[in-house]
Amino acid sequence: MKKEFSDQIIIDGLQYCNWNRELFEDVWKGGLTAIHATLVYWENTEESFEKIKEWDLRFNENKDIICHAKTTNDILEAKKNNKVAILFGFQNSAPIANDIYLVESFFQKGLRFMQLTYNNQTPLAGGCFEPKDSGVSRFGKAVIEEMNRLGMIVDLSHAGKQTCLDAIHHSSQPVAISHANPNFFHKALRNIDDDVLIKLAKKNGFIGLSLYPYHLKNQGKCTIEDFCAMVRQLINLIGIEHIGIGSDLCNNWPDEVVMWMRNGKWTKKIDYGESISKSTAWPEQPSWFTKGSDLRNIFESLVLNGLTDDEAIKIVGINWFEFMKNHF
Amino acid sequence: MKKEFSDQIIIDGLQYCNWNRELFEDVWKGGLTAIHATLVYWENTEESFEKIKEWDLRFNENKDIICHAKTTNDILEAKKNNKVAILFGFQNSAPIANDIYLVESFFQKGLRFMQLTYNNQTPLAGGCFEPKDSGVSRFGKAVIEEMNRLGMIVDLSHAGKQTCLDAIHHSSQPVAISHANPNFFHKALRNIDDDVLIKLAKKNGFIGLSLYPYHLKNQGKCTIEDFCAMVRQLINLIGIEHIGIGSDLCNNWPDEVVMWMRNGKWTKKIDYGESISKSTAWPEQPSWFTKGSDLRNIFESLVLNGLTDDEAIKIVGINWFEFMKNHF
Repeated sequence: MKKEFSDQIIIDGLQYCNWNRELFEDVWKGGLTAIHATLVYWENTEESFEKIKEWDLRFNENKDIICHAKTTNDILEAKKNNKVAILFGFQNSAPIANDIYLVESFFQKGLRFMQLTYNNQTPLAGGCFEPKDSGVSRFGKAVIEEMNRLGMIVDLSHAGKQTCLDAIHHSSQPVAISHANPNFFHKALRNIDDDVLIKLAKKNGFIGLSLYPYHLKNQGKCTIEDFCAMVRQLINLIGIEHIGIGSDLCNNWPDEVVMWMRNGKWTKKIDYGESISKSTAWPEQPSWFTKGSDLRNIFESLVLNGLTDDEAIKIVGINWFEFMKNHF
Repeated sequence: MKKEFSDQIIIDGLQYCNWNRELFEDVWKGGLTAIHATLVYWENTEESFEKIKEWDLRFNENKDIICHAKTTNDILEAKKNNKVAILFGFQNSAPIANDIYLVESFFQKGLRFMQLTYNNQTPLAGGCFEPKDSGVSRFGKAVIEEMNRLGMIVDLSHAGKQTCLDAIHHSSQPVAISHANPNFFHKALRNIDDDVLIKLAKKNGFIGLSLYPYHLKNQGKCTIEDFCAMVRQLINLIGIEHIGIGSDLCNNWPDEVVMWMRNGKWTKKIDYGESISKSTAWPEQPSWFTKGSDLRNIFESLVLNGLTDDEAIKIVGINWFEFMKNHF
């Protein structure tokens, strides 16, 4: 029997959008059940608490179609009430600075994902853009233990390889790489080697596949067939249950924001990040994934490209849900 | 002709005391010209600006005997006016978080020394207590360039070996290890290998020798003769002009403070730092160096143990002054 997309649990495991009513309506009409939304990159403690407060207003103004989820049960409730559940995540550990007690403070405010690093080294670990990756530090180990205790997902996106290996080894709970692709698909500092993916899966970890052009074969010109072929190859490598989508969709931002994401305030020069052509603009999305509701395109294309309905539904949501259920 | 101690420029290249009138009077009567005073370890940006403000009160209340120095000329003026010059330093880069612009903000407030790390990894570099030292990171290189530009001394105390080597190599200005001893004298994570000392000196760098018990042969029972013998050996290794005193004197603090220095808020467990016996108290100082004015003991003992007056005066002050003169 054919699965009806809108009846299923559909999850995007990472988006960083400049949210407004239009974007919320798109994912609501598009049948998404839950979205892990990035709140900060370089923001310090105070600024990060502010970002959380800003969501109070969004939840209030859009309470007919979205709600805040702190547990997988909240996600199920949201589905029942025909709302899109929003999960909070940080793409860096900058908000906790050197203070392990802030992990719980942010957890209490709903934070459910935190990256150890964002490209650069942090007190916790090494970033994927560092020439030398420290792996997980003394503080990093302590924070991972604290995240494990609370039920906050350790996110290894933007981490260096040694950091990924250390965190997979050290974490008592399965860890996620919420938005990246395999290096066998497209070699990039942000993408992941086979040996890491295999170790990740062996410890019940998870990868959300990215639609950010710099992580894709042929960037914005990547075909959906190539993307689906990558998914099939990855299923063969690590097993379907460890795979979902973390689209890394960054809609409705001016170009200044992509430069801010790359540079924060850590350099007075200009760092072009993943752009080899030194572009200061957002890269062009593949035509088949320009908005949150395009997750349906991926579902349909996976079915057209060799997956069963059941398998495709796992990739676009159920797998993320089952993974999250182990944490919160 | 015999040098009169009190006529000379006498500098302690690092102290972390809980300052009060009594301590200021001790160093004033003791003939000290200048002290590099530690303001923070783990404090964040806001807390660090607060620590600077606290000094306004100290300078005001003790203006007859101390003053704030931002330049080596200020040190000479202080000497002329019979006051002890206080230089500000941070024993960590926590105050600048991920913001390179804060280096200049703190410089404007008088900060003249900043460590890249304090035992643990930071976004800038690797700490001496980390099992794996990252060396200097992307942000670390940018901050070193900024410190070089401004005339703020890069302090490598509490850094890992690779970080020391990277910073010595990368910095366009000579760098300091403000308070540590050679590992040939006493092997410790906080002390320094010969090859680093040689490279440091080759690039006109500087080491301030520490009187903190964990950095000394036989700890608090270290004899002044052993200390002086170490100084002579170090002179032979790297040349006298690169050597001064950075006593690491930590007077007038309760035991809670040594535990806070070790643990900050980075762990919920207890880290005993350099104490092998897991002591939670301040270690006992050698009897010949229990207060700032005891720098005179070191001067006199160096002369009794084979140095000329001129050489001994260099060690207890002139060398630091000449080194600082290259920066501010």
